[in-house]
Order: sequence, then structure tokens, then C-alpha cells
Amino acid sequence: MSPAPLRTGVPDVSAAERAALLVEALPYIQRFRGLRVVVKYGGNAIGGSDDLALFAQDIVLMRAVGLRPIVVHGGGPQISALMGRLGKEPEFRNGLRVTDAETVGIARMVLRGQVNPDIVSAINAHGPLAVGVSGEDAGLIRAVPRDPELGFVGDVAGIDATLIDRLLAQELIPVVATIGADEAGQAYNINADTVAAHLAVAARATKLVYLTDIEGLRADVADPASLISRTTARELDEMIHSGRLRGGMVPKIEACVLAVRAGVPNAHILDGRVPHVLLLELFTDEGVGTMITDESPEEAAP
Amino acid sequence: MSPAPLRTGVPDVSAAERAALLVEALPYIQRFRGLRVVVKYGGNAIGGSDDLALFAQDIVLMRAVGLRPIVVHGGGPQISALMGRLGKEPEFRNGLRVTDAETVGIARMVLRGQVNPDIVSAINAHGPLAVGVSGEDAGLIRAVPRDPELGFVGDVAGIDATLIDRLLAQELIPVVATIGADEAGQAYNINADTVAAHLAVAARATKLVYLTDIEGLRADVADPASLISRTTARELDEMIHSGRLRGGMVPKIEACVLAVRAGVPNAHILDGRVPHVLLLELFTDEGVGTMITDESPEEAAP
Amino acid sequence: MSPAPLRTGVPDVSAAERAALLVEALPYIQRFRGLRVVVKYGGNAIGGSDDLALFAQDIVLMRAVGLRPIVVHGGGPQISALMGRLGKEPEFRNGLRVTDAETVGIARMVLRGQVNPDIVSAINAHGPLAVGVSGEDAGLIRAVPRDPELGFVGDVAGIDATLIDRLLAQELIPVVATIGADEAGQAYNINADTVAAHLAVAARATKLVYLTDIEGLRADVADPASLISRTTARELDEMIHSGRLRGGMVPKIEACVLAVRAGVPNAHILDGRVPHVLLLELFTDEGVGTMITDESPEEAAP
Amino acid sequence: MSPAPLRTGVPDVSAAERAALLVEALPYIQRFRGLRVVVKYGGNAIGGSDDLALFAQDIVLMRAVGLRPIVVHGGGPQISALMGRLGKEPEFRNGLRVTDAETVGIARMVLRGQVNPDIVSAINAHGPLAVGVSGEDAGLIRAVPRDPELGFVGDVAGIDATLIDRLLAQELIPVVATIGADEAGQAYNINADTVAAHLAVAARATKLVYLTDIEGLRADVADPASLISRTTARELDEMIHSGRLRGGMVPKIEACVLAVRAGVPNAHILDGRVPHVLLLELFTDEGVGTMITDESPEEAAP
Amino acid sequence: MSPAPLRTGVPDVSAAERAALLVEALPYIQRFRGLRVVVKYGGNAIGGSDDLALFAQDIVLMRAVGLRPIVVHGGGPQISALMGRLGKEPEFRNGLRVTDAETVGIARMVLRGQVNPDIVSAINAHGPLAVGVSGEDAGLIRAVPRDPELGFVGDVAGIDATLIDRLLAQELIPVVATIGADEAGQAYNINADTVAAHLAVAARATKLVYLTDIEGLRADVADPASLISRTTARELDEMIHSGRLRGGMVPKIEACVLAVRAGVPNAHILDGRVPHVLLLELFTDEGVGTMITDESPEEAAP
Amino acid sequence: MSPAPLRTGVPDVSAAERAALLVEALPYIQRFRGLRVVVKYGGNAIGGSDDLALFAQDIVLMRAVGLRPIVVHGGGPQISALMGRLGKEPEFRNGLRVTDAETVGIARMVLRGQVNPDIVSAINAHGPLAVGVSGEDAGLIRAVPRDPELGFVGDVAGIDATLIDRLLAQELIPVVATIGADEAGQAYNINADTVAAHLAVAARATKLVYLTDIEGLRADVADPASLISRTTARELDEMIHSGRLRGGMVPKIEACVLAVRAGVPNAHILDGRVPHVLLLELFTDEGVGTMITDESPEEAAP
Repeated sequence: MSPAPLRTGVPDVSAAERAALLVEALPYIQRFRGLRVVVKYGGNAIGGSDDLALFAQDIVLMRAVGLRPIVVHGGGPQISALMGRLGKEPEFRNGLRVTDAETVGIARMVLRGQVNPDIVSAINAHGPLAVGVSGEDAGLIRAVPRDPELGFVGDVAGIDATLIDRLLAQELIPVVATIGADEAGQAYNINADTVAAHLAVAARATKLVYLTDIEGLRADVADPASLISRTTARELDEMIHSGRLRGGMVPKIEACVLAVRAGVPNAHILDGRVPHVLLLELFTDEGVGTMITDESPEEAAP
Repeated sequence: MSPAPLRTGVPDVSAAERAALLVEALPYIQRFRGLRVVVKYGGNAIGGSDDLALFAQDIVLMRAVGLRPIVVHGGGPQISALMGRLGKEPEFRNGLRVTDAETVGIARMVLRGQVNPDIVSAINAHGPLAVGVSGEDAGLIRAVPRDPELGFVGDVAGIDATLIDRLLAQELIPVVATIGADEAGQAYNINADTVAAHLAVAARATKLVYLTDIEGLRADVADPASLISRTTARELDEMIHSGRLRGGMVPKIEACVLAVRAGVPNAHILDGRVPHVLLLELFTDEGVGTMITDESPEEAAP
Repeated sequence: MSPAPLRTGVPDVSAAERAALLVEALPYIQRFRGLRVVVKYGGNAIGGSDDLALFAQDIVLMRAVGLRPIVVHGGGPQISALMGRLGKEPEFRNGLRVTDAETVGIARMVLRGQVNPDIVSAINAHGPLAVGVSGEDAGLIRAVPRDPELGFVGDVAGIDATLIDRLLAQELIPVVATIGADEAGQAYNINADTVAAHLAVAARATKLVYLTDIEGLRADVADPASLISRTTARELDEMIHSGRLRGGMVPKIEACVLAVRAGVPNAHILDGRVPHVLLLELFTDEGVGTMITDESPEEAAP
Repeated sequence: MSPAPLRTGVPDVSAAERAALLVEALPYIQRFRGLRVVVKYGGNAIGGSDDLALFAQDIVLMRAVGLRPIVVHGGGPQISALMGRLGKEPEFRNGLRVTDAETVGIARMVLRGQVNPDIVSAINAHGPLAVGVSGEDAGLIRAVPRDPELGFVGDVAGIDATLIDRLLAQELIPVVATIGADEAGQAYNINADTVAAHLAVAARATKLVYLTDIEGLRADVADPASLISRTTARELDEMIHSGRLRGGMVPKIEACVLAVRAGVPNAHILDGRVPHVLLLELFTDEGVGTMITDESPEEAAP
Repeated sequence: MSPAPLRTGVPDVSAAERAALLVEALPYIQRFRGLRVVVKYGGNAIGGSDDLALFAQDIVLMRAVGLRPIVVHGGGPQISALMGRLGKEPEFRNGLRVTDAETVGIARMVLRGQVNPDIVSAINAHGPLAVGVSGEDAGLIRAVPRDPELGFVGDVAGIDATLIDRLLAQELIPVVATIGADEAGQAYNINADTVAAHLAVAARATKLVYLTDIEGLRADVADPASLISRTTARELDEMIHSGRLRGGMVPKIEACVLAVRAGVPNAHILDGRVPHVLLLELFTDEGVGTMITDESPEEAAP
Repeated sequence: MSPAPLRTGVPDVSAAERAALLVEALPYIQRFRGLRVVVKYGGNAIGGSDDLALFAQDIVLMRAVGLRPIVVHGGGPQISALMGRLGKEPEFRNGLRVTDAETVGIARMVLRGQVNPDIVSAINAHGPLAVGVSGEDAGLIRAVPRDPELGFVGDVAGIDATLIDRLLAQELIPVVATIGADEAGQAYNINADTVAAHLAVAARATKLVYLTDIEGLRADVADPASLISRTTARELDEMIHSGRLRGGMVPKIEACVLAVRAGVPNAHILDGRVPHVLLLELFTDEGVGTMITDESPEEAAP
């Protein structure tokens, strides 16, 4: 039985070109063999089910050629939608959702009971590969309250990556919903960008990838031509302190800085709207998005 | 550091009696070492958080003395509650909920995003022991539609217990939400009593325990004195065919019959309202509830 | 088949109390999981076969709930008895038996050929669980002469716990007869209290327990009310140097001090005459006997 | 450090097309994961070092995506060349080289000391991946004389694939020179096509691939349009018996028939002159060369 | 440091002869690699400590070159000696010792506490190699009474060779004292020849060797020239039934017949008085003693 | 089936003497168990096939009794012979063969395709024990050019002993042809004495043995009575610097010094013409040849 074709519009490429493109991927496949990559997916990047199917293909291909992907997702819009249907008014303070007991229950239902199984299910269309987990499972994410005024909005107090290690050892793909629990078992909603960075550190990932709805980081927000393809933690610090970097990207960038400073070799801001952008970044010579390292190669030199 | 005491009102028992009670459990502990027990928890048996905490203690103690518990749960009342809040009218046909696409999404949110993490969290108050899974994870439960008129109400087409085996091998406690997926990845809501029976078979469990809100099976539903403490698959078949057994217990009893016929040595109907009823059944000489086997000892004799 | 009941006089305890008592043991079972406990049994604590059966139950229960017990025994009274029957006059110098070649042969016969298999056999009434070993097996205990005048009375020159590690890895219970061998293979009789302490250190035990025929250590030997429930190595040093501690307890106490100073967290002096005293100490909130640590909690604070 | 680019003329393919081509390979990669493929390389297919480098890339890519390639090679032209330089006249009988003691020594030198390390070296340009072995190593190929008149020309009397299994278990690529040894240790030169088939059977390979210098099997040798893309062992038998199939292809085809009859699912005749033909066959929807199975799908139906 | 020389009178053999003798052993070493040999030692064969040291050397050499020896011993004379010293009159019925409770205790003390550690200690002069076990350890030998009139004289009801397997897996040499236990834990004295045969079967030994004080089996007991060097189970049956074989050898021969009929390839009767007779049998071309097989080579032919 | 006798002229040694000689080897067997020995064989020591068969016996016996031999060989005379037949004039500069591309191809053919399989085959007459490898396999020997004027004569730039470790772990005997490869995959011919020393270091061998055609190192080359049986690296340094040691032995001695300075405990110069000289050195009290250590025992004392 021939496997179902997945061709998506490559009619005019000759056999020789096809083979050559596979060969192009070879050094990357060899280089990344067995390495872990944390991919933050979600928020606005979660579009329709077509987008999700393309994303799932990429994750499955990463695993098929020997990488070990870990998916982390949030689901802010979906949470707001259910709150709306339940007649509950979202309330934000400094951009963070005030989260009472009912709200964290709603967030948990949406993240763990809707967004998470949707991603798991899209991946598992390719085989029994993905397992959904949340921070409440096997002590994965220990949470502390971020601010008493915000209620059950949590910060990461600790990650126990044992469960992730075991799932990866069985060649499974963990899909992580970012609900954490404090020592008493109370659930907290935690920012998914932050969880992704902490998990990349705790799970000793080689890459941390944020799939977003912009094409990368810009030196000048207003100027599409100012896309930064490579930068360092120190330069990002300066951009934040100088006020050049503002708005919604700041928490994501801070998470990148945290991760590369704690030993994750590379963080990436990629444009999740580009089909198969993960594959382009990982397996071709295309330069896409923004790559962040702890130091520039020159700084790292002796 | 001394572990937090869990004493619940045993002030008048002497030291000698305490020790003797532990020793009483010894032969049962030895007999059950390493064996798997599927415990169906939920529906009406899920009461307040106190009940859940007691249940969690029992499950953790089972694991501590070497048993391998697997928890399966449903959550009908909780699904109805959320549907009510969302202004969606439940519709039943022959006692089964008609489940359109929106309803199965609500069921999944409630089971996977509320009931399941509530149970996981109660167990994990004792340590990083439990992991929530659903039938969508790693191909655990393959579903087929039960009846086109019912929509996304599923039957069990197959169980792949690999994920359960792996979690048990790591001494983790699987807590299973009974959402299955068909080959296309579509989610189905499946009756939890049925899933428990199929899972007990697929995971080679030694016992299948239903925690209910009755004290056991009665020969005469109206007569509390007619409690049956031990019966066989054949006797239950006769009771169902003769019409003596009717109503809500029938699906549970059919699930028991299915399991013991497929090789699970014992099925039990226990009264989940009795504190620690699992421990009494497993580790003491008390006879509680109703035990079902494939054959009576006399039939099994050559 | 129902396992044989081991109930020993607990007729008046309700089902609820029974379950509650099992639950009381839970935190201790979790805390001690997989840890090793050296139990010195013997000398005067070895009474009739009823006592031995109770002791065996405790050891088997410890193993059943995940502890790894190692039993060490002596057998002074039994050695004297056989010497008496053979018409050989025991001769003591400073409380130590002068041990010529014939005497060490008799000691070896009694310890290895009588007391040891009696204990093994009592445990194995519960299954194929225990294996008798002596210091001569696989290089377990290397002996050096203690004093030329005493003949073949040995001190511990070294312990090679490899054999113990392997038996424990197979979930077997080692029962150790305290005969050692020097490099030439000559057998020596070694004090069992001393062997127990050295073995607890070499096998990285978490507890070293002496079952004796007193209820614990007293501040004032003559005053039963002066029982010390908790003390430290330093306090015991002072008691010995000040002369307050004298007589037969001194070697045992010195062995405790040696063990806790070398890293065994706790040593215990328990009253072996109390039925199931091991279980009371390990699995209930009862405070029994005397516990010895290296430092008091205050000393250990930074 | 970026890995050295291996691009071979794919300048005009867009990023989207590149990603799409990688995704096209996904179902094949998943289907072949962990499976063994015996690739017969050599004879006329061994061209210049460029061809060898392309072949090595294909083998390394197969391994990188989880296949387990085993390379088998001959080297007739190279043997003839050295014989020529040594002034030794090749003598053929029925198309088989008469092989005296000196000739088998020359064949062994060439196969084991020239062709084999050339292939190993080309693969190992990508890392320490390949190990050269011959049938004399660890009892891999036991030979028997084919015909006394031919001298040390051998047939395969048995394959002990243990060494191959071990090298594969360590993710190494075995490169096999087809010298066998009889029980006395005498070396024999064995036809490489035959060895490849026997080794595919003994090593439980999923595919046996012959890289040749023709584009596949033709129904009519003279008609390039009569290329057979799929056939069965039975049809090939008929073609041989009817005399339609003659000449140099017969031994290769007989080897294919032997292999698929003994359980190797597919044998392939591919055109080794097409760059990356192995990749086209394995990872794209292109139909290339001739595939041979034991039965046609219709025959295999019940 | 040079190891202590063990030379025992080989001054006149040249270097070349020495090397040649080692080489002579090579095919035997290769043939026996990893195989198990049960050696019954004891009774009259246990002479002075010099004999024991030579025996220990042989056992250690067997292990050093890759065999897995298991030693089984009795100790009748030693038991009688201690009974004598204790003033207890041995009583025999049909050649079997009547064994009351006190007598079995004495036998156990002597076998387990004297003969067994003497053998262990002689072996362990070469390193931590041997471990003494008895049938009471870990359920090794289950005994049933042979005859109510004989008291605690046992027959082998079953062997659980798990403990032996584990010790061998750790390259340890088990030395087995032939005390068994019934289900209640009561000790029995069992004939060591019988235990050796049952253990050879249960442990899947390749050879069963009896070291005795005769040079082998004679066709005519009175004629030293009638030594039988090779015979079969069937021939021995006939010799026993015809009455030609009588006396003390009968139980030993019956044990041999039992073992070879149950699948042990060879049983041997060797003269334990010849120094290093085990080595001569195993590693040289010398024919020594009597070898017993199930069938003669001619019978085994098709 | 009885294994084929290998006796080589030991007719007059009694059974007792035979056994005693085996026992003499025991302490050496125990001391060397599991240790690795690199044996450099070849050059002039490779004589006729009888010599090779004796050498193979020794290597197989070493393995049979638990040692782990690694064979390293050169083949200078054989290379010269083939060059002669091909009409190629060897050219030497400072005693080193000038090696153009054709010459290194010839050397590789001879070493890898003739000498290496000859040795492998002689060993494998005893079973599937040996595997031929060269420095080109799995990155074993990385070469750098020694001197541009010499062409493809290499020095050892690095050894990756992973492949050797794996073959030894499978109880196989690696036979190493001393062809290395540079990073580009170019083959180099490397002096086998030097490779043996580096490999002994990289593979953590306990002994490095050179089989030569002299009886050992002499203090005065002209005086056979001046054989040095034991010396140190420092003494050899002095002998070389003083000019007392000259000629062909110098590279071998320098290799010995390199190895013992880098942690190989002993290097040996043995006379390969003495039958079984390896066995005499390893397993008897005979002192043969010259042993080299880093320090004399006196120097090593504190």
C-alpha cells in the first residue's frame, strides 16, 4: 500500500531537483539528530484547521528525521471567547488578565480541554505520536502567584522535566498546556511564552522557537526593511532599556533572553503564517525570522 | 521532617492493635503486588472535594504498597452543568445524550479540562504521581460512532494500551478521560463504564472496580437486604434477560460481564460513599459490595 | 483462594477505623520507599518461635511496602548452650569469649547452621524471600583478630557489600551470620552489634535498628521514667566518658555512634519484646524506644 | 558553524516548494523507519569518484532519516585491471572467471583492499559511519566451491548475520566485500549479486536494491519503451524459462527471485547512472526502475 | 606484584611443553564456555584440607576459563562425628539414617555451619567467588518426607533454581548444602547425590560429576581391570535389575540415570582421590572414570 | 563430537603434570581477566602459515581464558613484493618509504586485502572470532602527513577507539590494518609499531606486546648475553640519547616509551620465533624477552 500523498503544489520540479533538495537537508538532519526543540505555538498563530494541519506535518517531520520536538501552547483568544459565551467580562491589569477562581477554571478547560487536544489530534493524524500534558501532570510546572491583585495568574517557580524526558525517550511528542499548580494543588494560568523558555532550559533544548504572526524582530517597528536576522541577548537588553522595543513583543523577547542566558543555544522568532516555516528554518539554507544567541560569534571568541 | 499526619479519627486504638491491623494487610499486599486495578470513578460518585481527597488517598496507598491503579472517570453531571450555563439544552435518546459537534467539544472541555485535572491534582497533593490522559493521546482509544442519530457518541473500536503500560512502568498513575478519536481524528464522547471495562481487558488488569452510589447489586432492587456479595457472568446474563435487572445499572453490569468474560479475574461494584471503601475491599477481610467473576468456583472446577 | 488470615486480636475495630489506620501508614510508606534498614536481631531478643514468627511478619511487611530490610543476628546464648552440651567450658576475658579453634568452629556451626536458617525459614514461610549469608560468603566481612589473647574473636577490617547489593536488587532479604574471615580464610566470630553498624554504613542504610530486651536507653539506668527518646552522638559520647553509661549497653551504643557518624541517618534502640515494635516505629506516629542521630536538629541548622 | 552546503543545482525552487518537497518525503520516512535495505553497488555502476560521492550521500541520507542501509559490492573490472597489470590472463568459463589460488588472492586484495575502503571512505567523509567487512570476518559468509573446474569461485553455503546485526545496532553502515571462506578458512570469490540476495534474506531486509547501468528490466531487450515497472517472481521465472530473458541480467534476476521467495518484500533494479536514484525510489512518488515482489497484489488476495 | 606461585612439582617440563599443554586445553575451553557443571563433592571424598585446597583450585580454574561450576556436598561422616560427641547414637534403617528433630538440627548445623563454609572458604582463598546456600534459602529445595519411619529424611519435591541462576549470572560459585524445607518450613536432610542430580536438571547443567573414592564403575566389582569408561542409562538399568550392581553405588548410579534421562547430556563418576581429576576430565585428552549418557552414540543415530 | 586434538609433542608428560601445569596458569588467568592486550604482529615475524597458525592459537587461547587481545599488523615485505611484481621501484628516504598515490593504494591493498584477512582467517579457523578493521573504518585512525617529501606516509593524529570497544564488548578480536585517513578521506600508510602504541593508549590496554625476530633488547647489541629482561622508560631514553641504541629497534623502543609514559602499564619485546611465546609470557613463571615499564618499582615507591 502506498502512503497517501501529501504533495502540496510542487508539480514543476524535476526528479533531479527533488533528490537534490532532499540532499540539501542532509547536513542539517545530521547536525540536529537527537536534539530537542521547544516550539511555542498558539495565540494568534493558531489559525484555522489548515494551518494546524501544516504545523502538525512539520512537527511530525522533525520527529521522523530524528529531532525531538516539544510543543508548548497558550490560548488567550479561545479563553476570552468562552468567557464571553459565559457572560464573564475579561478584566486586564497591565496587560495581564485578572484571574479569579472561576476564570482559572475556564482557562484550564479551554487550554487543557480544547486547544491542547486539538493540537494532539492534528499530530496524531500521522500516527500515535503526541501526548497532551499540562503543568499539573506529574509535578511538571510548579507555580507561584505573580501578583496578589491578579489572582491565579502564575509565574514559573520550577519545572520538573522528568515526565517530558520519559515521553521523549519513548519517541512521543509532548504537547504542553501551560497550567501550573502550587504546592497545595491550586491551578494557575501561566504565560505560555514564559513557560516555553523555562521548559527549554529545564529540558536542555537546543532550540527555542516562537511561531508568531510577524515576520521577525524589527530594528524599527514601523519599517519592514529593518528585520533583524540575528542578534544577541545583550543587544536585546539594550533595545528594551532604551525603549526601542515595546509592546506585546517585550515578554516574548525577555523569554528568549532568559533562555539563551540559561544555556539554550538558540532562540528564534519565526513567522507562523509562512507555511512550513519550521522546516525552512531547520532544514534549508534559507534565512528566516530572527535568531537570538547569548553572544555574537565575535564575543564568544577567546 | 515528619510527614504531615493524615489521621482521621483513630484515637482509641492501642499501639498493639495498630500494628496488628497493618499485619492483617500483609497477605493482601503480597498477593496484589504489581497487579493492575482499573478503578472507575465519577459520575455521581464524585462528590465534594473531601470525597475526592479520600479517594486520592486510597489510590496513592494502593500504589505505595505495590499495586498499579488506573483511574477512569466520566463526568455527566458536570457536562450538563456547563451546557446549561452555555444555554444549550441537553437532549437524550434512549438514555444517551445526543451529541452534536458543539456538545462533544463541551464534553471534551469538561472531561479533559476540568474533571480530569481535578482528579490528577488531588492525587498529586501526595507527590508527582498522576498523569492525565485521554483517548486522543498516543492512540489510546479508537472510537466508532454508536448510532448516527446520536452524533458524536462513540463506542470503543480498539484500545492501544502502550501509553498506559509505559506510564505504569514509570510508577505513574494514569487518570483517563473517556474521549476517543476515530481514524480521522474526530473526537467522540464514550461511556466511561464501557471504557473502563475495555481498558481493564487491554491493560491486563486483575480487578475492575466501579465506585458507585449504591452499596452493591441487589437481587431485589427494592430490598436492601437482598445485596448480592458474589455472582457470576452467567447469573447476571440471566438477571438481565429475565428483566429482573433494569435501569441505570444495566450498562455497568454489562461492562462487568464483558470484562470478566474477556479475562479480567474480578469485577467489583462498590459503594463510593463509604470512606476508603477501596482499601476495605483490597486490604482487609471485610466483605464489601458485589464481586463478579466469570464462573463460580464450582463451575471452574474440573 | 483467600490468603490465610493473620489477625491477632483486633476484633473490635470498625471497618472505618481499619481503613483509617492503613491510611495513617501512607506517608511513612512513601517516605521509606526503597530505603534500606539494617535490623540487628538476636541475642536475648530471640525468644520462642512465636516471637520469631512475629519478627518475620514485620520484616516481610517492611519488604512488601517497599523497604529493603537486612537482618543481622548473633547467637551468644545458643553458642554457650552447644558448648555446654559438648562439655566445653566458656571462658570470658573482659566480657569477651576466649575463642580457640574449636570454639570458633562451634560458633560457626551454631550461627550459620542453626540460628541463621531458623530466621531464614521463619521469613520464608511467607514465600521464597530470604537468603542466609555469612561474612565468609563472597568476601562479605573481612576480619582481623581483636586481641591475640582472645583467639579467633574478630574485628571488622572491611565490608564488601556487593553481595548484599545484589540480593537486595533481586528483592531478596539477606540474613547475615556474623562470622568473618581473614585473608587466609580463617574464620572469626565477630560481635553482631558491631557488624550491624559497619554493614549499615557499607550498605548505605537509612536506619540501623537494634532490637533489645529493654525499652530503650535511660538517662538513669535505675529510673524507668528517664527513658531517652531522642539523643545525639555527642551526648552519648559524654554519657560514656562521664561513666553514666556502663555495662552491656556500651558496645551497642558505641556501634550506634559509629554508624550515625559515618552517615547512617538514624539508629534506634527498640524493645524487641513488644510485638511488632518495628512496625510501630516505622509506620505509625507512636514514639517508641530511643532514636540516635549524628546531630540534633538545632546543631544541624546553619 | 554552518554545515557545508551540498546544493547541487536547485537555484530556482522557491522556499515554499522546498518545504513542500521535504513534506512529500514524510510518509515514506515514517513507513521505512528502522527498516533494513541491502544495496548492491558496484561492477559497472562504480564510476568515477563523483558518482561514488553521490552514492555515499544517498546512503548517509537513508541512515539519517532512520533507514538501515547495508552496502554490498563486487569489483570485476577492477580485478581484471590488476590481473592485467600483473600479466595474468583472465580466463572465463561460461561467463565465470576461473580462479586459481593466485587469482583469488588478487580478487581479495582488490575487493577488500581497494573497492571496499574506497566506498567506506566516501561514506565516512560524512562522519564515522561506515565499517568495511568481508565474508571472512566473524564467519559472515561461509562458501562452498561452485564447480571444481572454476577453482576458488564460491557459492553461498550460509550467512551468519550476527556481525551485521551488531554493526546496525550501533547505527553503523556495513560495507560488505564478497569474499567468503570455507570451513578450512580458504577464501573464495563469490558473485556479489548472489551475496546481496542471501544477505538480504539473512539480515531480514525489507528491500534489496540493485544499482545497475540500465534503466530497469525490459520486456523486449531491444525496446526501451518496454520497461517493466513492476513484476513478480512467477513472471520472471516464465521469462527466464521461455528464453526471453538472457545474458548478464539473468543471474541478477535469479537473485531477486531467490530473495523475494525467501521473504524479502521487494527487490528493485535501479539505474545507478541517475543521480540520487536511491532517494527518488525511496522518498518520492516517482516510479523508477523495476520492482519485483513475490506475488502480484491480486495473487496475494485471498 | 607477581601472583603467588601454585606450582606443584613440575620442574622438568620445558617451556615449549608448558605452552603446548595450555594449547591442548584450548578446544575444551572453547567447547565448555559458559556451560554449567554440577560437581557433587563430599562424603568420603572430603579428606584433609590439602585435598580440599586442590579441589578448590580446580573449581576456581573451571570458572576462570568460563565454565560455571555448582558445588553440591553432603557430610555424613561429619554428622556422625558430632552426634557421637553429643552422645547421640546414629540409627540406620535400610542404610538411611533415622532422623528425629534433634538429628536434623545436628545435620543442618554440620552441613550448613561446618562443611559448607569450609568449602566456601577454601574457594574464597582465591577471591570473593563462592557463596554458600542451602535448600532453605529462597525456596531452593522443597522437600517431602521419604518415609514416616525415617523422620526428617527428605526427598526432592521440587527445585526452584532462580537463586542459582542469579548467583551464576554474577559469576559467583554456589556451594549447596542439601537441607530442604517442606511447605511449613520444616527442615529435612536430603541425600546429596540425589540433590545433585535434580539440581543438574533444574539448572540445565551440561555435566553432572560425582567425585567418589573409587576409580569409576566396574563391570565386575571385584575386578579392577573391568573399569567401564562409558555406558548408557539403559545398560545401567539392566545392571541394577540383574543385581550385578549393588551396594553403595546404586543410589549414585540411579541419580546419574535420572539426570541423563531428564536431559543432562553427561554424568561422570570420577576418582576424587586423584589430584585435579576434574581438570583431567574437562581439559585434557585423558580418559578418566566412567561417563554416562542417555543413549550410546549408535542409539542416538537416526 | 570430540574437538580435534591440537597436541604438539607432549607425549611424555604425566596426567598429574598436565593438571599441575594448568593450575600454574590459574593466578595469571585471574589476574588478567578482562584486560586488553595489544599485540603487534607482522613485518618479519610473519613467517609461513605454520607460524601464523601457532600465533592464532595463542590469540584464541588468550580470549578463551578471558583476556581481550587486539592484533595490530604491518606488512612491509609484502608491500615491497607486490610493488616489485608491478614493476614499481621502492624508494626510501631516512628509512621511510616514499609513498605516492599509487604506492599508498598498493600498501592499502596488501595490508587490508592480503595480510589482514590472512590473520583474520587463521584466527577464524577456531570459530567466528576475529574481525578485520583498518583505520579508515568508523574513524578509527586519523592521519596527518609525516613529511611532505614522503607523500602519503602518515603519523597518528588521533585514535577513536569506539569501534574497538564495541567489537571487544561482543567478544570479537579486532585485527587492525594500519591505514589511516585524513579529514578529507585520503588514505595514509602509517608505521604499525607506532599505531600499536597509540592504540594501546587509546584502548586502555594493560599490555603492549611486540613480537619481533630478536630475543629481546640487548645492552650490547653484539652480545647475546646482555639481554635486558626489565627496563624503564628513563633508562631507554638514556640509551637512545647516548647512541647505544641504534637502528631498526629505535622506532619500536620509542613506541614502547610513548605507551608506558601515557599509562599502559607494561610493554614487551618478545621473540616471535619461539612457539607460543605469548602464552609463556602471559601464563607461566618463565621470564621471556624484555619488559618495559614507566618507572622501576623503586622509583614508583613513595
